[in-house]
Amino acid sequence: MKLFKGNIIFTKEKQAFDIIEDGFILSDEGKVLEVGHGLDDKYPDLEVIDYSNHLLIPGFVDLHFHAVQYGNLGIGLDEELLDWLNDYTFKEEAKFQDLTYARAIFDKAINHMIASGTTRMVFFSSIHQAAAELLMDLCSEKGVGAFVGKVNMDRNAPDSLLEDSDQSLEITRYLLENDREEAKAIITPRFVPSCSKDLMDRLGELASKGYPVQTHISENESEIEWVKSLHPEAKNYLDVYDKAGLITDKTILAHCVFCTEEERQVIFDKKAFVAHCPAANFNLTSGIMNAKLYLDKGIRIGLGTDVGAGHTPSIRQVIVEAIKMSKVNHMMDKTMPVLSLSEAFYMATKGGGQYFGKVGSFEKSYDLDMLVIKPDDLSLTRNMPILNQLQRFIYAGDNLMISAVYCKGKRLNAY
Amino acid sequence: MKLFKGNIIFTKEKQAFDIIEDGFILSDEGKVLEVGHGLDDKYPDLEVIDYSNHLLIPGFVDLHFHAVQYGNLGIGLDEELLDWLNDYTFKEEAKFQDLTYARAIFDKAINHMIASGTTRMVFFSSIHQAAAELLMDLCSEKGVGAFVGKVNMDRNAPDSLLEDSDQSLEITRYLLENDREEAKAIITPRFVPSCSKDLMDRLGELASKGYPVQTHISENESEIEWVKSLHPEAKNYLDVYDKAGLITDKTILAHCVFCTEEERQVIFDKKAFVAHCPAANFNLTSGIMNAKLYLDKGIRIGLGTDVGAGHTPSIRQVIVEAIKMSKVNHMMDKTMPVLSLSEAFYMATKGGGQYFGKVGSFEKSYDLDMLVIKPDDLSLTRNMPILNQLQRFIYAGDNLMISAVYCKGKRLNAY
Repeated sequence: MKLFKGNIIFTKEKQAFDIIEDGFILSDEGKVLEVGHGLDDKYPDLEVIDYSNHLLIPGFVDLHFHAVQYGNLGIGLDEELLDWLNDYTFKEEAKFQDLTYARAIFDKAINHMIASGTTRMVFFSSIHQAAAELLMDLCSEKGVGAFVGKVNMDRNAPDSLLEDSDQSLEITRYLLENDREEAKAIITPRFVPSCSKDLMDRLGELASKGYPVQTHISENESEIEWVKSLHPEAKNYLDVYDKAGLITDKTILAHCVFCTEEERQVIFDKKAFVAHCPAANFNLTSGIMNAKLYLDKGIRIGLGTDVGAGHTPSIRQVIVEAIKMSKVNHMMDKTMPVLSLSEAFYMATKGGGQYFGKVGSFEKSYDLDMLVIKPDDLSLTRNMPILNQLQRFIYAGDNLMISAVYCKGKRLNAY
Repeated sequence: MKLFKGNIIFTKEKQAFDIIEDGFILSDEGKVLEVGHGLDDKYPDLEVIDYSNHLLIPGFVDLHFHAVQYGNLGIGLDEELLDWLNDYTFKEEAKFQDLTYARAIFDKAINHMIASGTTRMVFFSSIHQAAAELLMDLCSEKGVGAFVGKVNMDRNAPDSLLEDSDQSLEITRYLLENDREEAKAIITPRFVPSCSKDLMDRLGELASKGYPVQTHISENESEIEWVKSLHPEAKNYLDVYDKAGLITDKTILAHCVFCTEEERQVIFDKKAFVAHCPAANFNLTSGIMNAKLYLDKGIRIGLGTDVGAGHTPSIRQVIVEAIKMSKVNHMMDKTMPVLSLSEAFYMATKGGGQYFGKVGSFEKSYDLDMLVIKPDDLSLTRNMPILNQLQRFIYAGDNLMISAVYCKGKRLNAY
């Protein structure tokens, strides 16, 4: 059993922060047993791991990250989605048949994520089986929780990335049946334009066995028009996936910028997850996603950096982007309330964390994913309230303020 | 004479970057004498300061920073302008009658700015004379170029910040006549609601002697309504300042979010400067400023962090915010082109730099304000083009990549 002391802050509910100043977290076997005041008196024999004057917050969860795009971080952001895919993304992904290259990029990407406080990661890899397996192995080695998706693409892709449908399915099936304890495989049709109806149907059959799924949806208006023209039979974009059996309670839908209320209702009914990626939506001039509509409807929603369309692997920065985007929504329609800091923080932790089980909170029986944050000098010398210290870390902090990162109770050191 | 070697990148014109790979900058007495290839052969007796494989870019210029708000960085950003002033800003500013407190905050603020690559700064201080003088002294000590504004407020302020009009004017006059070589005083009526017409008129008289001026304008819709109700006689917000003689070719207007074409025409005709502060405009849910309209009209425009409404002292990050805001403009009106990276970089360097004279470029006779940027590992191992290396620094970099900061040819070390 371990007993941690510090200023504890988390979001059991999205509406407000739970703050326990000078509190304790008791954990055992990587799970939270108890949280509160005075646990040092209650368990006098336990050594206290003393993070006094530090913030203890849940680790961040990134629901959408293209591990194979990390090398392109920060470049090409003057284009919109479809051009950007052709000019930057696909060219880079083709390189991941080279495992030496893949290892160099993946290693840096995961380390950068851990250094940014992310303990749980949902990855798009490339079409390549070996690269996906390598990524699973690296996640396991480094001790983070992850889902790794070998991408499926059997249409509208450059030759170097175009798969045979049977082979695409078989590799996917193999990976699902042979994944790692802490780095699971996930069915990953890239997006509708990249996958034939036949392939989507067969991936949907796999999904019906309880395997997780991730894909993109409604990120960009040209993309949506393209999907319409490819599937005139479908009611809407979501319907294409739904008809294939790809919308389940283990599906992550990245973006949902232009989803309609009708689509939102299906997402809600099927208990699917949404990965809100505001940095990427700004960068590719895609659109202004309204996360508040999803949160208020009770849809399960978390945040994604969406590297490389997103320019930062830091979920902390994406929290700020999410609030910013909701302010743009408010400026366009004054009846739309702005996301509060606690709502955005909730998405970054417990909201996305639900995809991994009991993750993203310090409630009893949750996995102990924890960041130890050293507040800046002014926070301390001015005796700022804990909540202000958190605000400063989120808005004006940097990775150097993250003194320690724990995942499932283990301190990570591979970064 | 000094000869610097590196990958040189700057914006002589806003439309495009000037890139000199493996080039040289020859400087003397803090000014650029020559820039180009092969200067080591031309001047064989000069020792080369070798920054090979580094980017050499102009120092950043911050046209709008509230030095007295640095202690509030990152907090209170769930409010809009007028509430935020009362709940956070004014309370904090009242503390600056205490010079010990002022020194602690100013010291950290300037160091953080230098560490972020800012070599030229235009400050709002508080109403307090001694704090403004201290800020000028600290800027001089640290070797940066600065304008420091003791704020004028003789109406609609809390008692602790409300000035007697005569005294406000006299202190301002004293500071203008007794400023420092490199840290000049600047006339700083906070904004129309804070200054009586009489005080604005008398400050306008001072301005007519050639002294610089800065103020806020049209940041927020409630503020604009308030100004209308205070000055029903004025054609528009700008007209209030203009009638008082406060709009000159040495005036910086912060924000201009809602300025009309009529106001823009006056700003253009008078050759006034605009400080575009997109991070702050997002944070306080103020509005979506359209910087492109100003740039394309030929108005002199630079960037401001607007700390503490802005949450970062990094102009690098504000470049990204400016592009993001222009993308929001484009999403709302597809006929509005997006700001290019070179346009945003221009605003951050030469655009704002013009306020200081020949600053923000590496053209002949410009002051040598220079940042030495160490590209990230992937930029180098992948042999990325210089422009991509710059993109990565701007979008995905951090202050640790800034290896050296020069202002007027002198390397700064106070950070």
